[in-house]
Amino acid sequence: MRTFQVELGAKSHPVHVGSAILGETGRLAAEAGIARGRVAIITDSNVAGLYGAKVAGSIRAAGYDAATIEVPAGEPSKSLATLALLYDRLVDAEIDRQGAIFALGGGVVGDLAGLAAATFLRGVALVQIPTTMVAQVDSALGGKTAINHPRAKNLIGAFHQPSLIVADVDTMLTLPGREFREGLAEVIKYAAIMDAAMFDGLEREMPAILARDPERLAEIVEKSLRHKAFVVSSDEREGGLRKILNFGHTVGHALESSAGYGSYFHGEAVAIGMVAAAALSRAYAGLSASDAARLERLIRDAGLPTAMPPDWRGGEFTRAIRLDKKRAGDAVEFVLIDRIGHALTRKLAFADIMLQLG
Amino acid sequence: MRTFQVELGAKSHPVHVGSAILGETGRLAAEAGIARGRVAIITDSNVAGLYGAKVAGSIRAAGYDAATIEVPAGEPSKSLATLALLYDRLVDAEIDRQGAIFALGGGVVGDLAGLAAATFLRGVALVQIPTTMVAQVDSALGGKTAINHPRAKNLIGAFHQPSLIVADVDTMLTLPGREFREGLAEVIKYAAIMDAAMFDGLEREMPAILARDPERLAEIVEKSLRHKAFVVSSDEREGGLRKILNFGHTVGHALESSAGYGSYFHGEAVAIGMVAAAALSRAYAGLSASDAARLERLIRDAGLPTAMPPDWRGGEFTRAIRLDKKRAGDAVEFVLIDRIGHALTRKLAFADIMLQLG
Repeated sequence: MRTFQVELGAKSHPVHVGSAILGETGRLAAEAGIARGRVAIITDSNVAGLYGAKVAGSIRAAGYDAATIEVPAGEPSKSLATLALLYDRLVDAEIDRQGAIFALGGGVVGDLAGLAAATFLRGVALVQIPTTMVAQVDSALGGKTAINHPRAKNLIGAFHQPSLIVADVDTMLTLPGREFREGLAEVIKYAAIMDAAMFDGLEREMPAILARDPERLAEIVEKSLRHKAFVVSSDEREGGLRKILNFGHTVGHALESSAGYGSYFHGEAVAIGMVAAAALSRAYAGLSASDAARLERLIRDAGLPTAMPPDWRGGEFTRAIRLDKKRAGDAVEFVLIDRIGHALTRKLAFADIMLQLG
Repeated sequence: MRTFQVELGAKSHPVHVGSAILGETGRLAAEAGIARGRVAIITDSNVAGLYGAKVAGSIRAAGYDAATIEVPAGEPSKSLATLALLYDRLVDAEIDRQGAIFALGGGVVGDLAGLAAATFLRGVALVQIPTTMVAQVDSALGGKTAINHPRAKNLIGAFHQPSLIVADVDTMLTLPGREFREGLAEVIKYAAIMDAAMFDGLEREMPAILARDPERLAEIVEKSLRHKAFVVSSDEREGGLRKILNFGHTVGHALESSAGYGSYFHGEAVAIGMVAAAALSRAYAGLSASDAARLERLIRDAGLPTAMPPDWRGGEFTRAIRLDKKRAGDAVEFVLIDRIGHALTRKLAFADIMLQLG
C-alpha cells in the first residue's frame, strides 16, 4: 500500500493507494480519526453490488454502525432532487455531527455524496473511496463537490476536504474499457501540465497501462494524486496555481453540457479539450508544433477522442462555454502549456477561442 | 457610523452599524473589495418595498450591475425549493465567480441567501444587510447559513463568511413590535453568557430600548456583534468557545420545530429556552436563585415569553430535541451559566433535561 499525506493545515489527511485494500477501509477510517458511531455509505446501483458488502463489512468490523444509501448510477444523480433524497435518508439514519459519509463509487458519487457531507448539519466528515480511474486520479482529492444545474455542469457545490481517501486499484479491473480510458485523460493532463518525465513514461508504457497491470496502475494513480495534492496544498480554493488543473476543462465542460450530459464521458470531453487547448497554446503560449503533436498522439494512443464533434459550431456550445465558472465578462481564464510539463493561464476572449477551435 | 473588523484571517471583514447608512451600501461594498460587475440583491416580499430601491440605487451608483431577486417573506422560504429557485435566478442574472450576493432582510433571507452564496459556483462573495433585530445582533455575523429540512430546522447548511456587514438600525423603526422584541432575546443572551456589566445596563435601560432610540439601538447592536465577533474569531467552526452562543437554543430550537415553524418566533423560543437553561444551570452549574430570577425578570421586561407551552410534554418536543445538531448518542452538549456573564458547556442526558424542565 502506498500512503502519503495531503498537507492542508488542520484539514490534512492521508491517502492510501494499492491493490486489495477495500477490506482495510474500516481500520484506516479509525486511524484517520473518524469517530466510531453512526455513519452512512453512499454508493450507486452499479458499485453497490460489486463492493458494497466488502466496504460495509470492513467498516462494521471496525466498530461503526453503517447504513448504506444507494442512488441510481449515472450523471443524472448529480441533481438537487437526488441530493434532497440523500438528506432524507441521512436524517433517517440519524447521522449526527460526529457522523461521517463514506462515498463509494466514481466521480458522480464522490461529487454528490461530498456535497451532502459539506452541507448536512453544516458539514460532517467525508471518506472518499473512489472506484473509477477518473475518481482515483482526480476527483476524490481536492475537496471539490458539486451537482449539476440543468443549465450548467457543477454549478452548485462547495469545497469540503475528505478526512481520508482509499483508492483500491483492483476496482479498475471491473471497469468497462471506455470508463477506464476516460480516466487516462486526467493522467495525461498531470503529465502535460506538470511533469515532462511522467509524460515520457506514459508514451513508453501506454500499452502496459491499457493492459491494467495493478502495479503500473498504482504507480500512475499515486503520481497523479501526488501532483494534485501538491497543487491543492498550495492553493486550496483555486485562487492561483490550482487553476492549471483546469487544462482541457473549459472546452471539455462546454462539450459535455452542450452535447447533453452523457454523450461524452467527462474524460473524453477533456481529451478533446486538451487538444483544443494545445491549438490555443500554439497561438498564445508559443507551444511548439512537435509538442502539440506529441500530446495529440498520446491522447490517441490511450484510445481517447481528439477532434471536436462535427456540429460543434451550433449555438449550444457557444452558450455553454460562456457559462464557464471562470468567465469574467466576455473572456475566460484559459489554461495553456508553453511546453510539455509546464502550464500557465491567460485571459482569452471567447471570440478568439472560437477562432482557434475552427 | 460605528465600524469594526471581524478578525478571521483571510476571511476578515468589516462591520458597519449606524443610522441612515443603507444608502452607503454601494460605497462600502467597493471599499470592502467586492468587484464591480454583476451582483444580485436577494430580499423578501416585505423588505423589497421598504428598502429594496434604496439599496439597489446605492449599489448601482457605485458601479455595480444589480439584479434583484425576491422570495416570499417568512420561514417557509428557508427550503430546498426556494434555494432551487434562487439558483435558477442567479443563472439568469449571469452571476459569475467575481459576482456577489447582497442579502437584504432578516434571518430568513440571510440564512437562505447565505447558503446560495456558499454553494453557487462553489461560493461567491456575500454582503449581509440585516433589517431585523435578530439578524442585526446575531445571524448576520458568523458565517452560518442554512435552510430547514421538514424534520429539523437548519439541518442543511454551510459555513460561509460574509465580506461585509451593513447594519442600519433605522430599519428597526418599521419592525412590528413582536419582531423587534424577539431580537432582544439574543441581546440578553450575550449579556447573560459574556458580559455582566452589559446585563446591568440592560436591566436599567430596557424602557429606553423598547422606545427604539437609534443611538441606544446602535449601542446594543454594536456590543452584541462585538461579543459575537470575539467568539467567532476564536472559534470559527464551533469546535469550542462558539458553542456558548447556543445558550437557550437547544430547548428553543426544539420548541420552534415541535410547535411547527412559525408558532414561536425564533427569539421567543430562545427566551423560553434561556429560562429553561437557567433551571438546568441551577441544577448542574451552581447558578444562584437570585441570578436565575434576574434573567427571567429581564426577559419578561423585554416583553418576551418565559414559560414552556402547556402541552410541551407531548412526543413532538421530545422527538425534536433528540434531533439537535449537538446530539451525541443519548445526550446533548448543553450551554449553562454559573453566574450572570459567564457560560460553560456540559453534556446532559436527554432524560435529565426533561426532568428539570418539568
